[in-house]
Amino acid sequence: MIISGSGRHEVEAVEERVALLDVLAQAPAVDHHCHGIVKDEVSAQSFQKLATESDLPQGPGGDVFDSPVGVAIRAECAPLLDLPRHVDAESYLSRRAELGQREVTRRLLAAANISTYLVDTGFCADEITSPDELAAVSGTQGFEIARLESLAERLAAEGVGAQGFYDAFRAELESALRTAVGVKSIIAYRHGFDFDPARPTEAEIRSAAGAWLSSPERRLSDPVLLRALLWAAVDAGKPIQMHVGFGDSDIVLHRCDPTHMTEFLRATVTTGTPIMLLHNYPFVREAGYLAHVYPHVYLDTGLAAGFSGASATSIVRESLEIAPFTKVLFSTDAYGLPELYLVGALRHRLALARVFGEWLEADAIGEADARRYLRLLMGGNAQRAYGLTPHQSAATSA
Amino acid sequence: MIISGSGRHEVEAVEERVALLDVLAQAPAVDHHCHGIVKDEVSAQSFQKLATESDLPQGPGGDVFDSPVGVAIRAECAPLLDLPRHVDAESYLSRRAELGQREVTRRLLAAANISTYLVDTGFCADEITSPDELAAVSGTQGFEIARLESLAERLAAEGVGAQGFYDAFRAELESALRTAVGVKSIIAYRHGFDFDPARPTEAEIRSAAGAWLSSPERRLSDPVLLRALLWAAVDAGKPIQMHVGFGDSDIVLHRCDPTHMTEFLRATVTTGTPIMLLHNYPFVREAGYLAHVYPHVYLDTGLAAGFSGASATSIVRESLEIAPFTKVLFSTDAYGLPELYLVGALRHRLALARVFGEWLEADAIGEADARRYLRLLMGGNAQRAYGLTPHQSAATSA
Amino acid sequence: MIISGSGRHEVEAVEERVALLDVLAQAPAVDHHCHGIVKDEVSAQSFQKLATESDLPQGPGGDVFDSPVGVAIRAECAPLLDLPRHVDAESYLSRRAELGQREVTRRLLAAANISTYLVDTGFCADEITSPDELAAVSGTQGFEIARLESLAERLAAEGVGAQGFYDAFRAELESALRTAVGVKSIIAYRHGFDFDPARPTEAEIRSAAGAWLSSPERRLSDPVLLRALLWAAVDAGKPIQMHVGFGDSDIVLHRCDPTHMTEFLRATVTTGTPIMLLHNYPFVREAGYLAHVYPHVYLDTGLAAGFSGASATSIVRESLEIAPFTKVLFSTDAYGLPELYLVGALRHRLALARVFGEWLEADAIGEADARRYLRLLMGGNAQRAYGLTPHQSAATSA
Repeated sequence: MIISGSGRHEVEAVEERVALLDVLAQAPAVDHHCHGIVKDEVSAQSFQKLATESDLPQGPGGDVFDSPVGVAIRAECAPLLDLPRHVDAESYLSRRAELGQREVTRRLLAAANISTYLVDTGFCADEITSPDELAAVSGTQGFEIARLESLAERLAAEGVGAQGFYDAFRAELESALRTAVGVKSIIAYRHGFDFDPARPTEAEIRSAAGAWLSSPERRLSDPVLLRALLWAAVDAGKPIQMHVGFGDSDIVLHRCDPTHMTEFLRATVTTGTPIMLLHNYPFVREAGYLAHVYPHVYLDTGLAAGFSGASATSIVRESLEIAPFTKVLFSTDAYGLPELYLVGALRHRLALARVFGEWLEADAIGEADARRYLRLLMGGNAQRAYGLTPHQSAATSA
Repeated sequence: MIISGSGRHEVEAVEERVALLDVLAQAPAVDHHCHGIVKDEVSAQSFQKLATESDLPQGPGGDVFDSPVGVAIRAECAPLLDLPRHVDAESYLSRRAELGQREVTRRLLAAANISTYLVDTGFCADEITSPDELAAVSGTQGFEIARLESLAERLAAEGVGAQGFYDAFRAELESALRTAVGVKSIIAYRHGFDFDPARPTEAEIRSAAGAWLSSPERRLSDPVLLRALLWAAVDAGKPIQMHVGFGDSDIVLHRCDPTHMTEFLRATVTTGTPIMLLHNYPFVREAGYLAHVYPHVYLDTGLAAGFSGASATSIVRESLEIAPFTKVLFSTDAYGLPELYLVGALRHRLALARVFGEWLEADAIGEADARRYLRLLMGGNAQRAYGLTPHQSAATSA
Repeated sequence: MIISGSGRHEVEAVEERVALLDVLAQAPAVDHHCHGIVKDEVSAQSFQKLATESDLPQGPGGDVFDSPVGVAIRAECAPLLDLPRHVDAESYLSRRAELGQREVTRRLLAAANISTYLVDTGFCADEITSPDELAAVSGTQGFEIARLESLAERLAAEGVGAQGFYDAFRAELESALRTAVGVKSIIAYRHGFDFDPARPTEAEIRSAAGAWLSSPERRLSDPVLLRALLWAAVDAGKPIQMHVGFGDSDIVLHRCDPTHMTEFLRATVTTGTPIMLLHNYPFVREAGYLAHVYPHVYLDTGLAAGFSGASATSIVRESLEIAPFTKVLFSTDAYGLPELYLVGALRHRLALARVFGEWLEADAIGEADARRYLRLLMGGNAQRAYGLTPHQSAATSA
């Protein structure tokens, strides 16, 4: 009978999954989008703010330890701080304070087992570790991702004029990309993906820059300029990370459906510049569709996978539905707390092990393929897309 | 090795789940959004109409007993009417008629095991039980949820003038909220969430009221007035239930994505008035995002959980991905048929038991936390958000 | 206690599922939407193009054998070509070339076990098998689905004038429907579902036809004409298949949410003409909502189920959440490669077996109902909706 496979191998299920976890633990992991870690000690109040995407004061029922990520932290990080799994919040914070941010970071990053960090340096860079510092504390390697809007805002702060703005921006970008391995755009936050896909003219850019630079507002949200930065990045050719979906209260979620920028993807497909769709919650399937159809589009499920704790499997699972296994990446989008790297990485590995374990149980995939794809999904795809050399990634396990 | 937990406890899985069902059965359940039950006997034809959200005549293949909710009714309600599980539709209806609506209601509500009903009295109130009648028949307690549009339409029917409309509405609302514990808005039905988030001016309201009251149309769908009602409710401060997503043929679904009212949520966040997103199918993740970011936003998965029968787990599961466990509520949205309370409550409990059971199997959550969150999800969160006193909910199990 | 059922029958789970697969294997399967198979030999390069929805040149990481559908082909088709499961791509293509397209087709279609094919003849009809040829090669029966836009474009190529265009189209449609059992619309590709729902006037049609026919463009994308074709099909009364969602790079995905045509569905509900929503990825829940509320709306999960390989279960599962079991159909949307029929049919059956198997495990559905619904879902619903006579479908197993 043609229908077979399903139900076979069921007794071997747990063993398979454990073996997959070994593969996942040994595969070099490239966290292709994260931030730095807070350098100072973290108060209980700061911890509450850092363990949520919400940037608003919380009311009753607002304790992050009663959210999925908080439950995951108490489950997974507690043992690494010599506490029982599922410890209460107070004991967790107390032990954390006792050990200090430096030691907590050392323990959790070691356990996160990430070989390479690509670090977005565009947000609150003074308070958190730089890529080099992050790499140093975890004995790994780190590379910079340059945030387009931050580069432009820095130029504005330095007094650039409207006339020379775009040339200065391109020079700044070129300079940043001597070391940075990619760029990041937050046009989703500042405008939404319903932006005009066309490359703006130099005259349009000058005019928009004039309006922006002569205003007191230093936060860049002009859609012409946001597009101009994107197109400069397209020309530069290195991967462009784009925040998609779930984020803080600056987002209008439905405007962050990445299929709203379909025309932009069409306009850039021949350039070959990779477009990395980040996070994608709840637009994982939309992102997978784009990665299926557009050869330069990639996706990950970072952020959501971390913040959803034990539910990460559902989210990771959707990313593997129609996108090629060669176009899906790993990230944590962790910021500030070392807990978020550990939870993001661990939950991502467990989710991959669960999904591939089910496929192996059903004999829907071969073991060699499963191992190969898991290595690609944890790091190989990122190495190829960002042009990280084998030497660079090999260095991480040294 | 850092990766652990998954695969542990597998032999204990079934026992865990059964224990969770005990927790769920014993937790006081607050159905924070439902309607009354039809008082008269229910004919086979009426049953067909009441067991679907469709308000259109059905053609071939339109028997509700061949839909997910119909299968669930034949599975779960039949034994309570002394019939075998999975009985055929004809036998079910025949036995139902034999027992009579009153006895069927008594049996099914007892089994639904709901301690507190918050009853939307705004739809066909004459034909269905009031909150007090519903509470009496089930030996529990009931509170009213006042529907904003119905209050306004009653004023119009009573001949209110445009000049005094808004003052009269606010007085009416204040009066209703002396006993009602919250309000309900159906702006999703009457307009969609793409409404102007700003508070309308008194002049705008007078003008819109004039146009409405001088027209023969008594159904309120003017967006200025719908917003005016909402803002009056924001000022009143009690929880505002908002219909989201799946409903009858009055809905244009894509306009019911709750993230379309992001600006309204931003504008009301400092007021602290709770916004309860109801049903949310298929926008559960969007609702979860809003509940994660906005401290005054809550969500449930009523209606869809009931109408999806055995598939409720998928829907409930999504509501627990990123929203805090303190912001997710239980409801049935049942209307007319006691079957819908039983199926809605049972499927919700089974879904929670399944999801938390999986997390316990994977050791992703601790047992004490699981028990505590299940109690919050079934009723505790509603008690806190609606300000139901411990005495009030304790009364339910008396 | 009221809560019961869950956890029962767990030991019988595998046996149940195997029995369901037997039911599924024996049920007459109606693939209500597919295309023909390429007649010529298929080169490695052609195979790569045919096994993806992308119509763009692929770069690094673009090997379809490393995508979910490629993995499924290597798993499920390889044994039918005398190769081990999970064989590598090179060996697969080599063996395929050795056997030849004709023999590969014979083997894979036999295994796909489809009794009736409804074949969309509107795309590249010269290069692929006709419905009769497809039926002949597989020893089954085939019927035509006439593509509305192709009929109109053929008239344009034949020199029809603006004045007589719409009458000629209606005559052409009537003629086609003497043998075709339904029509197909690709308004999703050519415009999106945000089209004006009103029936266009004859004057509007003449004017739009004039503009189109006097232009050099032969691809029909004028929204007035696209609507005119749809309304002619509504009048004709046979089922209208509508492409929804996931497709190639011509699609703007968010404009393909089928709830954007809610007004059109309202306007046509009394006509009784069935509307068949095809594929629906990622709008499966939206399509299910429409099928729940509108009596003339049906849905399937073809295409995505095939292209998602082992993930098809998640997609099929969503189609069964709120739609009646009498409104969900089976299709492969296969085009060109016999592999796509086999994988589409097999993965669909395995998905149904998994979902219904879980429901049986939980005692959420009765066995007789499960068997009956599976037969409806595989073919019975299509037979009813398309008016295929029992004789016609019985003929397929002869």
